[in-house]
Amino acid sequence: MIVVMKRGVRAEAIQQMVERIREMGLRAQVIEGSERTVVAAIGEKRDGEQQMLESCTDVERVVPILAPYKIASLEAKPEPTCVQAGSLMTGDGHIGIIAGPCSVESEEQILESARAVKAAGATALRGGAFKPRTSPYSFQGMKEEGLKLLAAAREETGLAVVTEVMTPEHVELICRYTDVLQIGARNMQNYHLLQAVGESSCPVLLKRGPSATMEEFLLAAEYILDQGNQQVILCERGIRTFETHTRFTLPLASVPWLKERTHLPVIVDPSHGTGLASLVPSMCAASIAAGADGLIVEVHPHPAEARSDAAQTLSPAVFQEAVEVCRRVAEAMGRTIAGPQAVPVA
Amino acid sequence: MIVVMKRGVRAEAIQQMVERIREMGLRAQVIEGSERTVVAAIGEKRDGEQQMLESCTDVERVVPILAPYKIASLEAKPEPTCVQAGSLMTGDGHIGIIAGPCSVESEEQILESARAVKAAGATALRGGAFKPRTSPYSFQGMKEEGLKLLAAAREETGLAVVTEVMTPEHVELICRYTDVLQIGARNMQNYHLLQAVGESSCPVLLKRGPSATMEEFLLAAEYILDQGNQQVILCERGIRTFETHTRFTLPLASVPWLKERTHLPVIVDPSHGTGLASLVPSMCAASIAAGADGLIVEVHPHPAEARSDAAQTLSPAVFQEAVEVCRRVAEAMGRTIAGPQAVPVA
Amino acid sequence: MIVVMKRGVRAEAIQQMVERIREMGLRAQVIEGSERTVVAAIGEKRDGEQQMLESCTDVERVVPILAPYKIASLEAKPEPTCVQAGSLMTGDGHIGIIAGPCSVESEEQILESARAVKAAGATALRGGAFKPRTSPYSFQGMKEEGLKLLAAAREETGLAVVTEVMTPEHVELICRYTDVLQIGARNMQNYHLLQAVGESSCPVLLKRGPSATMEEFLLAAEYILDQGNQQVILCERGIRTFETHTRFTLPLASVPWLKERTHLPVIVDPSHGTGLASLVPSMCAASIAAGADGLIVEVHPHPAEARSDAAQTLSPAVFQEAVEVCRRVAEAMGRTIAGPQAVPVA
Amino acid sequence: MIVVMKRGVRAEAIQQMVERIREMGLRAQVIEGSERTVVAAIGEKRDGEQQMLESCTDVERVVPILAPYKIASLEAKPEPTCVQAGSLMTGDGHIGIIAGPCSVESEEQILESARAVKAAGATALRGGAFKPRTSPYSFQGMKEEGLKLLAAAREETGLAVVTEVMTPEHVELICRYTDVLQIGARNMQNYHLLQAVGESSCPVLLKRGPSATMEEFLLAAEYILDQGNQQVILCERGIRTFETHTRFTLPLASVPWLKERTHLPVIVDPSHGTGLASLVPSMCAASIAAGADGLIVEVHPHPAEARSDAAQTLSPAVFQEAVEVCRRVAEAMGRTIAGPQAVPVA
Repeated sequence: MIVVMKRGVRAEAIQQMVERIREMGLRAQVIEGSERTVVAAIGEKRDGEQQMLESCTDVERVVPILAPYKIASLEAKPEPTCVQAGSLMTGDGHIGIIAGPCSVESEEQILESARAVKAAGATALRGGAFKPRTSPYSFQGMKEEGLKLLAAAREETGLAVVTEVMTPEHVELICRYTDVLQIGARNMQNYHLLQAVGESSCPVLLKRGPSATMEEFLLAAEYILDQGNQQVILCERGIRTFETHTRFTLPLASVPWLKERTHLPVIVDPSHGTGLASLVPSMCAASIAAGADGLIVEVHPHPAEARSDAAQTLSPAVFQEAVEVCRRVAEAMGRTIAGPQAVPVA
Repeated sequence: MIVVMKRGVRAEAIQQMVERIREMGLRAQVIEGSERTVVAAIGEKRDGEQQMLESCTDVERVVPILAPYKIASLEAKPEPTCVQAGSLMTGDGHIGIIAGPCSVESEEQILESARAVKAAGATALRGGAFKPRTSPYSFQGMKEEGLKLLAAAREETGLAVVTEVMTPEHVELICRYTDVLQIGARNMQNYHLLQAVGESSCPVLLKRGPSATMEEFLLAAEYILDQGNQQVILCERGIRTFETHTRFTLPLASVPWLKERTHLPVIVDPSHGTGLASLVPSMCAASIAAGADGLIVEVHPHPAEARSDAAQTLSPAVFQEAVEVCRRVAEAMGRTIAGPQAVPVA
Repeated sequence: MIVVMKRGVRAEAIQQMVERIREMGLRAQVIEGSERTVVAAIGEKRDGEQQMLESCTDVERVVPILAPYKIASLEAKPEPTCVQAGSLMTGDGHIGIIAGPCSVESEEQILESARAVKAAGATALRGGAFKPRTSPYSFQGMKEEGLKLLAAAREETGLAVVTEVMTPEHVELICRYTDVLQIGARNMQNYHLLQAVGESSCPVLLKRGPSATMEEFLLAAEYILDQGNQQVILCERGIRTFETHTRFTLPLASVPWLKERTHLPVIVDPSHGTGLASLVPSMCAASIAAGADGLIVEVHPHPAEARSDAAQTLSPAVFQEAVEVCRRVAEAMGRTIAGPQAVPVA
Repeated sequence: MIVVMKRGVRAEAIQQMVERIREMGLRAQVIEGSERTVVAAIGEKRDGEQQMLESCTDVERVVPILAPYKIASLEAKPEPTCVQAGSLMTGDGHIGIIAGPCSVESEEQILESARAVKAAGATALRGGAFKPRTSPYSFQGMKEEGLKLLAAAREETGLAVVTEVMTPEHVELICRYTDVLQIGARNMQNYHLLQAVGESSCPVLLKRGPSATMEEFLLAAEYILDQGNQQVILCERGIRTFETHTRFTLPLASVPWLKERTHLPVIVDPSHGTGLASLVPSMCAASIAAGADGLIVEVHPHPAEARSDAAQTLSPAVFQEAVEVCRRVAEAMGRTIAGPQAVPVA
């Protein structure tokens, strides 16, 4: 850390800072500038030292040097991680395409969805059984009944299933039915939940919170990794900004930025990222061009009848065309998207 | 809801919309404008109708008319709610002052804190036993041991205790030791947790999430109220914006805005709202001037030694002076802050 | 406009609103809802009516139905506009590639830059002669001397020149040397400047302000169009959000959103949009995949020596590779980027 | 500056950085950390050095130590500045109250406004003659005719006049009629305009841009100060965030933050800061409690008839009550607001 002292502090204050740093078990080095003195604290341990130093009387501010995440970093593991879960492969060159309805609504709906997205090129099926809804008066999902329908859809199509878990006590139940546990954006900093999925052996798709910094995002992943589960997929799904013409703002530069710093796969959710179905296909293509390791897209056989997220949901036909464009864009970037035939039928 | 149709849609499309609205059990009224036709859907039921209509082919957008929260609204209960929990009274004219350290660190620290904040004018004690920390490598709190120390501090000083609950399975445990359950900003949309505290009989302090809209904030309260717990205190604690000179941006206009719409008490957390101890006293005074029903402030007997949030923590002496100023500001506004003598000693 | 009345207003208040709307020369239609009454004001004239109605006593809020921009809208001109300025063509199927240094620094630097970006595939040269700088102590550009060097570079390479104009009194001077006038993000709402370039016959590249909504952006274009200049290129260059890992946040969904509403060409500036050279190539590709009509990229023969924006500037070699990738992505999308041979040498 | 080198760079790269820093005329000091090496560059000159160093190959990032503003800083002038302009005094203990309509609309309207705000306690009159409007189709102000009416209102009431200047070529004209030149939020980074008002001898009220950082705000002031005009009032008027329930978000913590760093007076505009008349009085009181040196408030004799900003405009009666509350809050803070009798009648 670099401790910037206030202007005009006396020599004793600097000496006290040096001693304080040493008491923390760190090494101190003083740099006398033209207008300010700064003290470098060397050997930082990445816990509360920064805040303690910040609160000292003569300190203007403290600048950390090291990133606080460890296991997620490329420094810890320079080779890209491929997360594999049934028919889904993402990372280390593999592009996964996850698609399906926002919510599981009925057996017919989820089976029709699964067949349609598979035919269109998806390599995994998404669908919510436990739904986080802003209002307590909105449809909250079919719960375990929905999980069973997802498992049936997997049985028929061979597609891996991705579904959200909202609370630690559901982890075990949901793991019985799904291939990938999704942590929703609202729960990105629900640490008990992160630890609970970290203790499971099921791969995790972690969505970025709408106001999470990259550091907070990687530290949320770190909570999972630190429990021993190394199968974590990061998902950019848009942030909350002053823009209201889209539901969220989709900052695609986070894809290459993350890939410069972490070995984990990074996918994009253009459905929530825009909230508008007409923008989703071009954002799918842009995500692949940005280097994403996959997509998660809301597709419903009859979008206008969807019980949630209808406005951002693609029809199977539009989704299929979007996947075709993505496949060509991937090739333009020197990458490939595996065709639907790559998915084994059960 | 007001359904704005796309420009130049044919009469049949409008007729279809009218029929669709009727199928939803709503009444439809067509308004032919100079450039657009809009269709009013009357009698809305506040669930997914909006999104379903938005996804129809010829619809440009759908504008809701009714606020989606009900129990929290002044329309449902025009009289202000006073939440009382032991020595803490907030709302309906009462201004509560909650103060204490970020984390419980030791018996000596929490007892010294409790005595100091009581002497300075606080009417409740805050302190974290289960701590949500951005990094898994940071101090996570003393857990149940911390709860016991909080209860001991209450025993000695008579101050009500406010402490955070992070996961549903801890609700019962924490209720045994505390007077008010705090839902932290990261968990504002952790719906299972909201429901769990809604089922308890313990008053709840609900912090606004850093990217939550007012509507989302009131709907989070609605999750608690809907379970039967009517003792909810709303807490503005700052939002995430492009500003980096403060930890968060503290938007005090949310206080009068909320009080125009809800009967629930609204308090402010200027410690997290600014992140800088030197700004906290003036933001305490500004909060009271803005009409807040209370404050929650981080105070530690030795701020520089605090294990978390040190940079935003006040010393007891600075806090006492801030309370004095707040008392005078409250009087200037025609309100009163009860003195420390109002708190009974056990 | 839709005027939402407060809850429980008396019939007289609604009648007064109806009369007020009629006094404005508009037609009124009352819709009695279950909990609210709304009054539609039909025939709106897009000026201050909304705010006047909002300030009436019994009004809760007013919802506009029509977009306030006219000439820029696809409704006014359904055919896409191609802006042509010398070697630069953008819009209506043409993808323009504008590249060059942030600032003109010397004859050698700008000539070397022009040759390099042309060889790499650029169809126009950018370079700042009058530089808006956050600090008054930073290099402010070579001014007219810089314009002459830009003109010399055009003379030699045949590349159209794009340069920024900062104040109305410079419009005439800069028009003598340049092919496209750039309005920088800081000046997007400098209305006298917009009117001044609107009166010129020189094409205009209008950058989005970092906190401008889409509506404000299109209305800024409308200021130019309304003066008679129809050659306006819109440029998304990133917005200011809470994200600090990039200089700005680049919201690429604005590209397809704008193209659904305006006939004007939309290009992207990934250099300012990210601020980090390593992210620029993937954001170039993503912009093309998102449907952009062009790019504007900072390229310097020796990035580390650039007097401004060094951290976000590409070397010619990296830029050339980025253009190659963009060319392949454009083909994947069914579009083409004209090769460098398309630019005539003077 | 502190140059953080990338992980694992070779000793030669560090040596090259040291030499590069020396070539810039700065002193270099190397700090070998446990995981990173950082190089301090001492004696920084606050121009483009930071960006040049950032663009070097082996550099991870560069952290500036010194604030880039100089004349505005408390370090340059530790005594608070009082800006005096006719009846308006603000700063160094004086609280100025500026009030009046958004736009000058007629002789009767501005005279009635001036009398009313004076009676209510204002010490200066605001009113727009040249109006920056988002849409080219909105009322653009009465221009020079409006300036003459403002001067007439000053003549009658003795109130100093504050009005906006939008373009350099109007500075001289407007200075003939006004006491304070206002730079609107949209023009905070219109550097030619800042320089033009900096060359005048008229005091300047500089509004913060809606996406300006504190550093950009102070550097905008620095542009004015650097030209020789030392009479600058800073005005917080709200920032653009994701919040839509208010027109902007009013971050009052910027008041005490600025006053810790600059000697210039800091006032608040709660009218634009909230956009809702019902929130303005409590935000006036909160601003004074936060330590503001004054207020600028939109007041119109008949708010519902105002041609612009009607929804955020107070009636004289509501404004008078707000000033009374502010006077009591100021006293609670140990300060005073001079009564209306303090303003001499011409």
